Amino acid sequence: MKNYVLTPGPVPVPEFVMLEMAKPIIHHRTAEFEEIFFKATQGLKKVFMTQEEVLILASSGTGAMDAAVCNTLSKGDEVIVVNGGKFGERWGKICKAYGVISHELKVEWGQAVKTDDINEMLDKNKNVKAILIQASETSTGVEHPIKEIAEITKNRDDLILIVDGITAVGAFPVEFDNWGIDILIGGSQKAFMLPPGLSFISLSKKAWKFYEDSDLPKFYLDLNQAYKNSLKKTSPWTPAVNLVMGLNAVLEHFDKLGLENLFRRHSIMSEATIKGFESIGLENFAPGCSSTALSVIKSPEGIDAGEIIKGLKNKYGMIVAGGQDQAKGKIFRITHMGYVDKGDMISVIAGVESILNELKYDFTPGLGVSTATRILDSL
Amino acid sequence: MKNYVLTPGPVPVPEFVMLEMAKPIIHHRTAEFEEIFFKATQGLKKVFMTQEEVLILASSGTGAMDAAVCNTLSKGDEVIVVNGGKFGERWGKICKAYGVISHELKVEWGQAVKTDDINEMLDKNKNVKAILIQASETSTGVEHPIKEIAEITKNRDDLILIVDGITAVGAFPVEFDNWGIDILIGGSQKAFMLPPGLSFISLSKKAWKFYEDSDLPKFYLDLNQAYKNSLKKTSPWTPAVNLVMGLNAVLEHFDKLGLENLFRRHSIMSEATIKGFESIGLENFAPGCSSTALSVIKSPEGIDAGEIIKGLKNKYGMIVAGGQDQAKGKIFRITHMGYVDKGDMISVIAGVESILNELKYDFTPGLGVSTATRILDSL
Repeated sequence: MKNYVLTPGPVPVPEFVMLEMAKPIIHHRTAEFEEIFFKATQGLKKVFMTQEEVLILASSGTGAMDAAVCNTLSKGDEVIVVNGGKFGERWGKICKAYGVISHELKVEWGQAVKTDDINEMLDKNKNVKAILIQASETSTGVEHPIKEIAEITKNRDDLILIVDGITAVGAFPVEFDNWGIDILIGGSQKAFMLPPGLSFISLSKKAWKFYEDSDLPKFYLDLNQAYKNSLKKTSPWTPAVNLVMGLNAVLEHFDKLGLENLFRRHSIMSEATIKGFESIGLENFAPGCSSTALSVIKSPEGIDAGEIIKGLKNKYGMIVAGGQDQAKGKIFRITHMGYVDKGDMISVIAGVESILNELKYDFTPGLGVSTATRILDSL
Repeated sequence: MKNYVLTPGPVPVPEFVMLEMAKPIIHHRTAEFEEIFFKATQGLKKVFMTQEEVLILASSGTGAMDAAVCNTLSKGDEVIVVNGGKFGERWGKICKAYGVISHELKVEWGQAVKTDDINEMLDKNKNVKAILIQASETSTGVEHPIKEIAEITKNRDDLILIVDGITAVGAFPVEFDNWGIDILIGGSQKAFMLPPGLSFISLSKKAWKFYEDSDLPKFYLDLNQAYKNSLKKTSPWTPAVNLVMGLNAVLEHFDKLGLENLFRRHSIMSEATIKGFESIGLENFAPGCSSTALSVIKSPEGIDAGEIIKGLKNKYGMIVAGGQDQAKGKIFRITHMGYVDKGDMISVIAGVESILNELKYDFTPGLGVSTATRILDSL
């Protein structure tokens, strides 16, 4: 059976990218590779919407999250961690590992954080030096209001905004310079439609000032090393050469397509998927604050989402993600990022319909697919 | 012009490995990938010659070197760093970043450390908790006597031996269990003939005791997280899926070939290259202690090695590595690891001969090639 990977990371990799990465190895300390590396960083700047350097690390996204903390903060520093899902929770764990004190702003899963709550927490905790958040929380499908939060942080010299944009950068606009974000992180296996193994991170001038004051130890993840080398078109440690080659192929593709069209693709697939499922009575887990990077859909009352996920896999070879922790058995998650297209969205909705039918769920078969198809037609 | 990558990492990747990595992505949290990941760790155990778990990190080798320090030591701890090249120097830098006090045992470039000198330093510094060394120092081509050093450390509970085997593991025997090594590190872009992006690390039971006492902060590089997940056939953070798929293809190839035959290949290529160059008057930079992973050859008196390196690139598309720092202009370095074979060794010697001829170096043209060929015939 053919496999359809429809998880919100890793995502399917286009053939032209796989073939680019299958090209013979290039030594990294050569003019030839330096040009490739430089081109990649320039292309990343466009997607990050910044004039600042975007650093390429040989690590998964968590490596860049770790780096964001240990490069800007010190032991005993206070921060606010917005925790509305598994990745918000991870910010708290990273802070704990470094002895950074995190004030946790708990947000109900499936909801976006309210800026009022952030302001209130800042009022109560005058020493807070950073706000750590996700632009798009992969475990719940929520998009947090980064632009609004940046309004709070951007005029304060003593406070930075650290954004995990792993499931956001390249999926929808996260305007680093315009909004005034201080740290933004991306990952290769998401909207960049590459295999996992690379992370990307950019720092504002304010964040670099925080770097100077940070006393946390770091070596492999020392971003100043990465920065100094990036200006020389290289990396301090051996880069993941083939992934960087693949990245360039992706960035060229983005250039041809245009960022707006790329974002529009995700947006239309998101709308179609959500409305398609809603038309047969399946609710959006993040109503009013859905990230367009993925859709998170609630299983109907009385039906375990695990049944749907298992059915999709066994009957159609379709791999979607389930819920974690409190959302386990309640939701399933579908990517709009990566090498997926209209047909994939239509077929996964059809697949879910077929399984729901078997499970005796009461709905109008075909309605989900036809609702989604009408919206996807505009793509 | 065809490119011949003959550098001691990255090394050429076999076509069957490139094609394996070009296969469609698999989601990492699936039974399918867990089997792949498990198989890889089992295969790595054979190459590491250990019954301990071998952890797979999404990082370059330096990430694993960093992890070795921050997972076993504490701020203010004293260690001995054997510094006989660029990578020995790196151990010192990592220790410094973490506030670990390193007693540097300087070794002349091109020479192996003497165990007597280590014993002397241990006598003078009773609080030393670890010895940090390279099994094969890539910048000089030296193989250090790891087995002998392990004789010193293995019976002491308060002292561990941390070995950077990035350019050694898979190239020649580094017997983790038999010799009593405490930490051993490998890297994907060396004898494992993969692109860069993965590192491997194994810890002895004694090293895990050191982990318990270590107070250095870590998150992404926390080896206990990697260990606990490895027992469950997975990794704590998103693994570099395609590289792990490629790793399995390589490990299967090693299994078919047999480790002894793999080591023998490197050994014969090393002997042929060194004797070939010696026959035309070019000296081995590491006489009596050559690593078989690479050959480091001195440029003849009065000829800048840069001329040879440039000539090889321009005339034949052959990429070899030069010397760094004090060895710049004096040496060139050729890999025996990776997807290279007899023909590559013959042609690079012929290439050097041709360039030396142009540079009016006095020698018998063809002698280097014929000397090497005779030895390579036994492969």
